[in-house]
Amino acid sequence: MLTAEIIAIGSELLTPEKVDTNSLWLTGKLNEIGIEVKLKIVVGDDELRLEETIRDALKRSDIVISTGGLGPTEDDITRKISAKAIDRELVYHTEIEADLRERFRKWGREMPEINKRQAFVIDGAEILPNPNGSAVGMCVEFASKIFVILPGPPRENKPMFENFILPKLREMAGEIYVKRKMLKVSGLGESAVDEAVAPIYTAYENVQTSILFNKSEIEVHLMAQAKTETEAESVLDELAGKIAEKLGIAVFSTNGEAMEEVVGQLLAGRGKTLSIAESCTGGLIGERLTDVAGSSKYFIEGAVTYANDAKIRTLNVPKEVIEANGAVSAPTAEAMAKGIRDRSGTDFAISVTGIAGPDGGTEEKPVGTVFIGYADAKQVKSKKFILPGDRYLVRWRASSAALDYLRRQILKNDE
Amino acid sequence: MLTAEIIAIGSELLTPEKVDTNSLWLTGKLNEIGIEVKLKIVVGDDELRLEETIRDALKRSDIVISTGGLGPTEDDITRKISAKAIDRELVYHTEIEADLRERFRKWGREMPEINKRQAFVIDGAEILPNPNGSAVGMCVEFASKIFVILPGPPRENKPMFENFILPKLREMAGEIYVKRKMLKVSGLGESAVDEAVAPIYTAYENVQTSILFNKSEIEVHLMAQAKTETEAESVLDELAGKIAEKLGIAVFSTNGEAMEEVVGQLLAGRGKTLSIAESCTGGLIGERLTDVAGSSKYFIEGAVTYANDAKIRTLNVPKEVIEANGAVSAPTAEAMAKGIRDRSGTDFAISVTGIAGPDGGTEEKPVGTVFIGYADAKQVKSKKFILPGDRYLVRWRASSAALDYLRRQILKNDE
Repeated sequence: MLTAEIIAIGSELLTPEKVDTNSLWLTGKLNEIGIEVKLKIVVGDDELRLEETIRDALKRSDIVISTGGLGPTEDDITRKISAKAIDRELVYHTEIEADLRERFRKWGREMPEINKRQAFVIDGAEILPNPNGSAVGMCVEFASKIFVILPGPPRENKPMFENFILPKLREMAGEIYVKRKMLKVSGLGESAVDEAVAPIYTAYENVQTSILFNKSEIEVHLMAQAKTETEAESVLDELAGKIAEKLGIAVFSTNGEAMEEVVGQLLAGRGKTLSIAESCTGGLIGERLTDVAGSSKYFIEGAVTYANDAKIRTLNVPKEVIEANGAVSAPTAEAMAKGIRDRSGTDFAISVTGIAGPDGGTEEKPVGTVFIGYADAKQVKSKKFILPGDRYLVRWRASSAALDYLRRQILKNDE
Repeated sequence: MLTAEIIAIGSELLTPEKVDTNSLWLTGKLNEIGIEVKLKIVVGDDELRLEETIRDALKRSDIVISTGGLGPTEDDITRKISAKAIDRELVYHTEIEADLRERFRKWGREMPEINKRQAFVIDGAEILPNPNGSAVGMCVEFASKIFVILPGPPRENKPMFENFILPKLREMAGEIYVKRKMLKVSGLGESAVDEAVAPIYTAYENVQTSILFNKSEIEVHLMAQAKTETEAESVLDELAGKIAEKLGIAVFSTNGEAMEEVVGQLLAGRGKTLSIAESCTGGLIGERLTDVAGSSKYFIEGAVTYANDAKIRTLNVPKEVIEANGAVSAPTAEAMAKGIRDRSGTDFAISVTGIAGPDGGTEEKPVGTVFIGYADAKQVKSKKFILPGDRYLVRWRASSAALDYLRRQILKNDE
């Protein structure tokens, strides 16, 4: 298997705020053609360290890809240091300068003299054109190694990599196809999922399976490698099918869709409509549902009844219900769901009321106590959850629990 | 100035999904005491590459910090390889094993034999206790170098670094204090901000100023270095004060607070209440407002009137207003704001109606057309915005524009 190493260049990437996202995208692309990334480095605009980094990388790895540091200013040192690290000269290309001048002319500006720097290319390198920016990329091949030099901005380096480098690497790597698939599971813990499906996935030696917990759901990541795309896909489909069968209704997505998309598809597919009543989630469920383009087909109305008076006024929750049980209670959740459904005339309604924290918890109802209400034409009911985490997580998990509760009800109604 | 290098260890950090966030936090902490991070490396569970990485790092940098790979399993190679890279032995500590056994006993479990691995420590290393997990950290000092080995999980390595390493490094670095401050600006572009404030900040040579655009606002980051904390803080306060004065009402935060916090503080400080009516933002404004703990003091109710019927039914928007002007129009936005204020009896109300895309745009009202409505006891008005970006960005920017519109109105009312 070929190995790759990615070098991100630029002092701004060594600050506490900046993440090198280029390497994530490049890793995904490289993995798809069966190339493994063995090392990632972030180095600043520091000539000695950069030179050493490039030299070492080319000793260790078959493929070295750098991003950034190709701009026109003094601190853009990638061109100069890359040439030095592989003991080659920089050569001036008049056609690159002419092209740059022409671009600036089109933008109605004179080319600053400083941009001439960008017309220098490492001797013997393939020039990678950049329709989206002023810095050309470079690709140097020697012995069995390949050294790719890309600009930093994603909208410049992505098309460059896909158009000029990926086909070359695919040829180097041979016909290996790597495909991924992700299932999402709700209502079960990480170890419960692993226990249930380990006997299934361990039988597939050519599929790499990893199980991750993500805020409110379990993700089952599958990665298959095969000689053809079809073969990789069919083994993934087979394994995913077995896992989905084993876990049943807990699997809400077999193609990585978000919970709000799944719920939207269920509603749209049945021509049904939804309204919601939120308290502790403050609009989050509405926000998630309407994040899906086309959600106006099924999502009609939401009420964010944060104050008790709002629950009474807008949702017709009887004052006595709140007084007798509290705003965070099963009867209130049920009255909220019924109230918004009556108001909006939708097929389904869900509601959430709970204690998101950090304050407001009691011994009887600690922070994380959440009631989800549900109403349709035939019934009104609710379910209690105790959700762990801080305010952010409690709210997120409450919104997911509400959507999942609805999803399970819709599927149950189908039976 | 002392230089540091951070090594993140673990093959999962070389996948397309995983970001090494430990290094960002560590960089922030190191910068605060005047230590610069010169290189960051992510390396997998690969013995040869890890050994080489550690050896090289200790040649180049004064301080080397590794995170991860201290678990009990076969692929946790940090202990073994770190010892090898600095030519030292691993020594077994019975007291660490005893402590581990005791912890497992408290959790009501038998310690798996595999965890014995975690009782090995590099000869001569200081042992860093880990109250939050089973892996102890290590700190090895030799010549003028310091090599710190931390576990991967943030809740384990953060307290370990802060309690045992930071004081040591502060002593090594000498009395340098680095402080940061961030101003946030709305309603102005990046270059407009830079043009206005560059003459101010360029006069402060000991403050590093950077201006960044973040979705819907401009961030002005200031970083000052001084011999004392007070000195660093006072130069920051002085510069921040001048910038805030120059930019006026466009500066909404001088301490990094989010727009929803600022609006919340304005409302709480005046004892005023708010209700909102959302269409294209689908609950996002409510979600942002209620993300702030204590928001129930001023946030009363939100209506997510996605369908036109919901606008008419719940907000009393006259049907003729929608028919004559469309749901995305100034009159509808104003009727929505008035409607939710009438319903909830709050001091202020804001509303949003717009076209978030990707579909629904017309020549007259392209995707990104958003109307923000405002109502208080004396007036009802609205403002039109054309917001660039995809569905996600249009919705985010619309929510920010609405909160900012309210913020400016509250401040105007004070005059």
